[in-house]
Amino acid sequence: MTDDLLNSIDTPAVLVDLDVAQRNIQRFQDYARAHGLAVRPHIKTHKLPAIARMQLEAGACGITCQKVSEAEAMIADCPQITDVLITYNILGASKLTRLRALAQKVRLSVVADSKAVVQGLSGAFADAPAPLAVLVECDTGAHRCGVASPQAAADLAQIIADAPGLTFGGLMTYPPAGGEAGVETFMTAAKHLIEASGLAVPVITSGGTPSMMHAAEAPVTTEYRPGTYVYNDRSLVARGVCGWEDCALSVVATVVSVPAPDRAIIDAGSKALTSDLLGLTGYGHVLGRDDITIDQLSEEHGRLVSAGPIGLAVGDRVRIVPNHACVVTNMVDQILAIGQGRATPETFPVAARGCIR
Amino acid sequence: MTDDLLNSIDTPAVLVDLDVAQRNIQRFQDYARAHGLAVRPHIKTHKLPAIARMQLEAGACGITCQKVSEAEAMIADCPQITDVLITYNILGASKLTRLRALAQKVRLSVVADSKAVVQGLSGAFADAPAPLAVLVECDTGAHRCGVASPQAAADLAQIIADAPGLTFGGLMTYPPAGGEAGVETFMTAAKHLIEASGLAVPVITSGGTPSMMHAAEAPVTTEYRPGTYVYNDRSLVARGVCGWEDCALSVVATVVSVPAPDRAIIDAGSKALTSDLLGLTGYGHVLGRDDITIDQLSEEHGRLVSAGPIGLAVGDRVRIVPNHACVVTNMVDQILAIGQGRATPETFPVAARGCIR
Repeated sequence: MTDDLLNSIDTPAVLVDLDVAQRNIQRFQDYARAHGLAVRPHIKTHKLPAIARMQLEAGACGITCQKVSEAEAMIADCPQITDVLITYNILGASKLTRLRALAQKVRLSVVADSKAVVQGLSGAFADAPAPLAVLVECDTGAHRCGVASPQAAADLAQIIADAPGLTFGGLMTYPPAGGEAGVETFMTAAKHLIEASGLAVPVITSGGTPSMMHAAEAPVTTEYRPGTYVYNDRSLVARGVCGWEDCALSVVATVVSVPAPDRAIIDAGSKALTSDLLGLTGYGHVLGRDDITIDQLSEEHGRLVSAGPIGLAVGDRVRIVPNHACVVTNMVDQILAIGQGRATPETFPVAARGCIR
Repeated sequence: MTDDLLNSIDTPAVLVDLDVAQRNIQRFQDYARAHGLAVRPHIKTHKLPAIARMQLEAGACGITCQKVSEAEAMIADCPQITDVLITYNILGASKLTRLRALAQKVRLSVVADSKAVVQGLSGAFADAPAPLAVLVECDTGAHRCGVASPQAAADLAQIIADAPGLTFGGLMTYPPAGGEAGVETFMTAAKHLIEASGLAVPVITSGGTPSMMHAAEAPVTTEYRPGTYVYNDRSLVARGVCGWEDCALSVVATVVSVPAPDRAIIDAGSKALTSDLLGLTGYGHVLGRDDITIDQLSEEHGRLVSAGPIGLAVGDRVRIVPNHACVVTNMVDQILAIGQGRATPETFPVAARGCIR
């Protein structure tokens, strides 16, 4: 990116290089194809119909969303999205009503990890024109949601299969990084138990960018749901998953103060970079400046410190790779897209920003 | 709040009790009046014209904003706001053009901590119908922005006074908590130096909720800019500044999974509660449940753990006081207001959400 272009941007701004994103999409799609895995990207990272289209055109089988409102926002502007998995326990009359409306528009599946959630879904879909596919969420080591054992997965699969308005759609997990062995053991056992009871297990879906290039080490898996891989971020560089040149998203900021020789303040704080640390020290990486640590964020200020002279002046622009790309996307109403032949940045509204319900 | 009302809320949602907010506003206004301090609340905490009105009606002299876009959003829907201080170094043609437009609508002042910022402001206001008041930002110990010494403050005051289109408006600081002695020493010295050169120092403004009830211990201060005081939060309870009953903002969440006897998962993650820790352990306080720690957030999941049985069921509602109220306000397009005689929650759009430029 030229200095002129960088200096023309009103800051802070979130910049996305679509050429880098395209390369990241293709890299995992190639891996998945070579290993017979379907790819169902999680859109939480970009929240942009335009990038979902790029993922689908590269060969994705559909998209993953986390909330009903995300799915609504994504499909509103993207007829190419015809298959949506919502990897979340959906509860409550309002969301279930919207879920049923969504099922009229796309091939829809959801997950459940308890009888209570299954009962709610069944109540909403009992008289629906077509049954809703429900996958059992399994805890393979992340200790977030999910049934705790293969037997519990098999029991819940049967409850789903018996529930009016629902069909059993398979097994889903969000594994810990490096948890392929655990996924393989759990899912193989659950699959055998479920098949022994006469039910088919059409899909076994796992996901998570950190270990995506090891997805094939759990061969029971049929589908993978990476999210961050499209942009990458400082946490993934720190894990050795990618390099800075693979980071498609950066925050452009302006130096607003240089109050000391070793300190500068930028106009991007926690409202742009967020406070997510993901186990790291500091709040992002200033591209080209390995010596700088972003050691403190207020809402609108970021503090840059260096062991030597900071070498920045008021008005200078910096580009920062954030610790966590997904949460940064959620902070802004729009991103600036570059690449794919654009001479100047193009504004993309972040269609699914702030969709927490 | 009744269980029926709580259960009627689609979650996650940010709930604001206006009766509590009103009490918080009045408490500091009374303190300030008793000590001859003007109050200029920072609107970053609520970003709501309706609450700015409550603060002005209680006696505030104006409001504080951090960015031009915040000021634009706040005054668009609130004719009662006639006096705005933007406590930020404003740089760049786009923002300066908007700043000049803003100066046509309200009594406006801004800050600067360098000659470069002053030059930009002067360029934009040199041919304006009226001069812009510029205060010198001083570093009294927080080590963020600000000139480093009283002499530097006096030098910059003179540069402002000499700059076409500008008038010197006084001194501003964002002090560290408990920094009253530092404020008094710095500001007194700077004031004497400036007055010795023949300039008046019309305003000395300080701010920050944590030590607001000690504001009068720096008697040189003429104005105070608390923000969080209107809502309070877990960080302020932890500092002993207030109690849970003084927390006007809470996040209402639903239990979506109880995967283990000592663990529950709620539908509020970092997209609602944020990852701000402010030195605390855990990501919020579950009201009425001192035994629970929110030990982990994903974007849409919060993990609740207890040393004993978690005692929650799928579908249960919980209310959480977040670590930091201001950043939570910024995550949502709307809040639900209760109190002031409302039988059911009223939706308030968060007018100044996401205003990072």
